[in-house]
Amino acid sequence: MSRTDTKIPHIALVSSTLDLTFLKTAFETSGLNVRLSIYPEPDFESADVAVAWNPPHGLLAEMPNVKMVHSIAAGLDNIFADPNLPPVPVCRVVDSQHALGMAEYAIWSVLLFHREMDRHLQNATHKRWERPAQKAAQDYTVGILGFGAIGRTVGRSLRALNYNVRGWARSQKEEAGIATYCGDGQLPDFLSGCDALICLLPLTDATRGILNTGLFAHLPQGAAIINMGRGEHMVEADLLAAIDAGHLRGAVLDVFLKEPLPEESPLWSHPKIFATPHIASMPNPGDVAAQIFENTTRVLAGREPLNSGSRESGY
Amino acid sequence: MSRTDTKIPHIALVSSTLDLTFLKTAFETSGLNVRLSIYPEPDFESADVAVAWNPPHGLLAEMPNVKMVHSIAAGLDNIFADPNLPPVPVCRVVDSQHALGMAEYAIWSVLLFHREMDRHLQNATHKRWERPAQKAAQDYTVGILGFGAIGRTVGRSLRALNYNVRGWARSQKEEAGIATYCGDGQLPDFLSGCDALICLLPLTDATRGILNTGLFAHLPQGAAIINMGRGEHMVEADLLAAIDAGHLRGAVLDVFLKEPLPEESPLWSHPKIFATPHIASMPNPGDVAAQIFENTTRVLAGREPLNSGSRESGY
Repeated sequence: MSRTDTKIPHIALVSSTLDLTFLKTAFETSGLNVRLSIYPEPDFESADVAVAWNPPHGLLAEMPNVKMVHSIAAGLDNIFADPNLPPVPVCRVVDSQHALGMAEYAIWSVLLFHREMDRHLQNATHKRWERPAQKAAQDYTVGILGFGAIGRTVGRSLRALNYNVRGWARSQKEEAGIATYCGDGQLPDFLSGCDALICLLPLTDATRGILNTGLFAHLPQGAAIINMGRGEHMVEADLLAAIDAGHLRGAVLDVFLKEPLPEESPLWSHPKIFATPHIASMPNPGDVAAQIFENTTRVLAGREPLNSGSRESGY
Repeated sequence: MSRTDTKIPHIALVSSTLDLTFLKTAFETSGLNVRLSIYPEPDFESADVAVAWNPPHGLLAEMPNVKMVHSIAAGLDNIFADPNLPPVPVCRVVDSQHALGMAEYAIWSVLLFHREMDRHLQNATHKRWERPAQKAAQDYTVGILGFGAIGRTVGRSLRALNYNVRGWARSQKEEAGIATYCGDGQLPDFLSGCDALICLLPLTDATRGILNTGLFAHLPQGAAIINMGRGEHMVEADLLAAIDAGHLRGAVLDVFLKEPLPEESPLWSHPKIFATPHIASMPNPGDVAAQIFENTTRVLAGREPLNSGSRESGY
């Protein structure tokens, strides 16, 4: 029995904020041959691999056999936040379906503002029949702040609907039909033409709080914000001030500084803010389990895992 | 002066429900060389062409020189409804931009249900953080009832987002990647697989009231309705009953039996109904003016106008 046991990878599911039972179920349903422990079940600390989401700080350092820490999604910031993270590869889930889900959410949100569905929803509460003139999609500019793999998929799907799309990233990117901007120097120019701004940035020290009064001032009057990055990108008080001052049209927010969004948050019920519970895209648990399994097989065989992140860049 | 006058086409803008001044402005802005009268201005009845939207019944028959009646949009039902319509061509506006606007509205509405934004909007009013599992677009079926030129454009744009799309029309249609159904015989089969049903039918005696309890019964439990056709397609009491019984998930309605939708209508404030003021697509006035001008030039030169409808089919 012990001989068989040593061949079966041992994976620990570790989170201080999420119940990861759904992922255990996905491994079992997929028939993947692993031993699974959910923290704080006994013996979780002997695992070969830690699958983590907001792990308790210092906990992973106390797992002597751990050879890889794997996120359950694209974001690694919640793992890099641990100051005692062991020196092993930290990997993300890269899921094309995930990027499509993000694109769906972005399209719905852009249409909400471009086609003034926000105004129509509000008007309906007042039983008000009002027909504003319509703008063609090609005359509506969507800016994507954070133009990595997901930003690119989102950008292409908005281009396919005729939107005028531009992307900004820290480093220079190229994409057919999309104007690209890079670095702090080009940020004001990028922002100045955006009717809607979608945040898809990774969370790093350089991007924390980037959605603030200073950035909003570069956006044209009436621009809308769609935050699909991290709650920490947004200075919520600045957003409320810019909307209430009439500078910004409104916002769709999927991520928040504190999740679940507390009942007392003014973001729940502001008439110009649409808050959703971090559902822009929820990866298929079976796909997540399959990628973690593949990477586990790799690291246990001494090979490089796929899709590892960089501690230095923070993503 | 009279010699010049006879060469300039005289167009009358005639409506009992809409103020068509915007169209006069569009002709003027476009620099099109026509003489325009807005009913009931003096001398409108001497016009060569009537541009009509819900014209007062019998009025067009009293215009002795009229050689064509032109709609301001795709729908002709509002013109064919006149029992004293003179025996001249009745033409629609065919506007590719218009179909794209319809596609935008359809996409927003399908995403509203598929991505459960209806539920998230409702949950936000209760400050409730709830994260239902996500369904891939390819596992979500959208049925398009009325698969003509607009239905086809809408269908293609939903296919491009990976939706499983099917179309129904009175006559057999073909479209790559879309399952097509035709005639009354295949209607139940078509309906039985629809997670969302989009009505894009023309309004005829055969389609009036088609969205009723009998049709809803063929839809699966939890299906959603999107009406972008005409208010007369919908039996509003049947819709309310099917939603309140929990058989239908909800509806997005852009068209109503009576427009503007009266304040006392329960459709304004029903929590599962999203009412918009007939804005799914508003053609660009400049494009409408250009098409009417082109057809006017044709009929005054004794040629066939483009995009004429059939009294027999009603569209």
